[in-house]
Amino acid sequence: MKPSIEDIRHLYKPKVKPIEWNHNGHLILLDQSKLPFETTYVTLTTPEATADAIRTMKVRGAPAIGITAAYGMVLALFNGSLSTLNDALEALRKAKVVLDAARPTAVNLAWATNRMVKKAMDLSNNGDAKTPAQLRELLIKEAEAIFDEEYNAEIAMGLYGLEKINEGDTILTQCNAGGLATGTGLGTATAPIKIAHALGIEVSMIAPETRPWLQGARLTVYELMVEGIQTTLITDTAVGLVMYKGMVNSVMVGADRILRDGHVFNKIGTMKEAIIAHEFGIPFYALAPSSTFDMKSKVDEVIIEERDPDEVRKIRGVPITVEGVPVYNPVFDPTPPKYVTGIITEKGIIYPPFARNIPRMIGE
Amino acid sequence: MKPSIEDIRHLYKPKVKPIEWNHNGHLILLDQSKLPFETTYVTLTTPEATADAIRTMKVRGAPAIGITAAYGMVLALFNGSLSTLNDALEALRKAKVVLDAARPTAVNLAWATNRMVKKAMDLSNNGDAKTPAQLRELLIKEAEAIFDEEYNAEIAMGLYGLEKINEGDTILTQCNAGGLATGTGLGTATAPIKIAHALGIEVSMIAPETRPWLQGARLTVYELMVEGIQTTLITDTAVGLVMYKGMVNSVMVGADRILRDGHVFNKIGTMKEAIIAHEFGIPFYALAPSSTFDMKSKVDEVIIEERDPDEVRKIRGVPITVEGVPVYNPVFDPTPPKYVTGIITEKGIIYPPFARNIPRMIGE
Repeated sequence: MKPSIEDIRHLYKPKVKPIEWNHNGHLILLDQSKLPFETTYVTLTTPEATADAIRTMKVRGAPAIGITAAYGMVLALFNGSLSTLNDALEALRKAKVVLDAARPTAVNLAWATNRMVKKAMDLSNNGDAKTPAQLRELLIKEAEAIFDEEYNAEIAMGLYGLEKINEGDTILTQCNAGGLATGTGLGTATAPIKIAHALGIEVSMIAPETRPWLQGARLTVYELMVEGIQTTLITDTAVGLVMYKGMVNSVMVGADRILRDGHVFNKIGTMKEAIIAHEFGIPFYALAPSSTFDMKSKVDEVIIEERDPDEVRKIRGVPITVEGVPVYNPVFDPTPPKYVTGIITEKGIIYPPFARNIPRMIGE
Repeated sequence: MKPSIEDIRHLYKPKVKPIEWNHNGHLILLDQSKLPFETTYVTLTTPEATADAIRTMKVRGAPAIGITAAYGMVLALFNGSLSTLNDALEALRKAKVVLDAARPTAVNLAWATNRMVKKAMDLSNNGDAKTPAQLRELLIKEAEAIFDEEYNAEIAMGLYGLEKINEGDTILTQCNAGGLATGTGLGTATAPIKIAHALGIEVSMIAPETRPWLQGARLTVYELMVEGIQTTLITDTAVGLVMYKGMVNSVMVGADRILRDGHVFNKIGTMKEAIIAHEFGIPFYALAPSSTFDMKSKVDEVIIEERDPDEVRKIRGVPITVEGVPVYNPVFDPTPPKYVTGIITEKGIIYPPFARNIPRMIGE
């Protein structure tokens, strides 16, 4: 019988805790900018310190930034000088400005701070919160709800993904669509393998290092090793050989944006994995919540971000090539629907034809 | 009219000179172990110093090692204490032992030292060399012949490859199958583009960095920039996107071993380029001299060398991942014949069906 989300919440406890709230007005973040070389935590007590942690990439990944910002809003209410509800609402509005400015392009950040402000106004207007202290306690619950919704969606995705895993499987991923990026410790692309492991199903993972940022080598390897899941690191050049040699049973990756026709935008290098998997008859799955779908854009309308050439010219600050060599450094690539076996969301698995089945599952 | 090898020898002078002989008993090597960060040369005057330069990778690449070893043998005869031909032959035999031990698995090394010893014995036996000084001059010519045979073969490959290049083309490569690896300054996979450039045909190259050793970033980029050819460095993850976006007109790579059925063993990552090129209808060519063909082995019989995990765990000595993470670090991959458009040798271009056409061109 398929386990329920509640079953998994009891059975599985993430061993990596990127974001923890300790109810004394302390937000504790795993400092991801130092991973995997140092496992250190920072304790934040103000919205300003939270904004700074977001700005300096101590926390990264869209959902993780959203959750962090929600708790960062709550920290505004631990200031002892707030005597009225209006003081508290004003403090929240100020906190929102500070937090939103930390990473202006992060959609989840503004979404989370908006939700917290709106909730505070509702609680104030409908009389559920009569004092700053009451508002604070109810907003902690709202931040927890944001965390829980994310976590439950990941468990749902993990359970759908689990249907595609057999005992003894090895799964190839790309980049880090793990619990560090989502903030919950579970992750999207990593959810099925972590849940399988928790259920006693023997599984292992192959993680390509994912140049230029090396998220595979730095983050995916780290969080899977902490969970005790057998993980092998490869270079990005070895992605073809591991599939050719039959070392991979399926590919599971995250997604940054999925179009209505099934194009999957994800970290650079994902497309080549999908094409090679397709060639060798290996299933390729993208795992992402339904909020990832962009039902409006056409593939040619999506601008592929290009980043600083020095990310390629140097690794951890060490030059690896001729100074000043011209570099093309795109961050994402679009995997055409032809190479995608299925898209795993919290609502279920979407199969081709995507142009018909994505709107059916996700809505317009 | 197609230019001749002689035409190209007059028209094109390599700007990178990995190996130079100056006739005063000095062998001058570009120190490749310091590239691209320092362009320095070492001057060698003994077989022992030459062996040391080979051992410490100041020179690398199979043909370059062969040429270097041939000159290293000649250096044995610059010892003033040799008074008889027998002394000279004895010095050559000793030099061969020293040089062969420098990289025991390098087939070209022992091939070159064998050829030099055999030539010395012939010259001695047939009376062409009567003194150590005469023998020395004739062996310098033999080493030069080894260099010239390699260089002419590369020009021949380059001219055949040129038939596949159009004005304005961009060529994707992998690793370094360039003039640094062959010792001539021209190279195999790089020969067509360098000759095209010399003929005034506008061409450019995209070089993937080629982890773990970064030969693309360190060597290919270096030698093409020195030649003045427009070169763009990409990560290995971006190989799919550049082909998807139509930025690549053809792929040209070297080969370490080619089987009778057309399987091309080359640096790890080549197979994925070939599969993606095939998928997008981009021609994929392997360039290699006829000595690269292995007419005996089956694909499953070729052992793919795996190297030290620390080559993946660290880059230029800097850790990039969790200490001790399990690593799979294969050096080569076999590109199946299905994805190979043609194999360009000094004898001509071989097209599918390879199982029929390779023996016809190469012999049994």
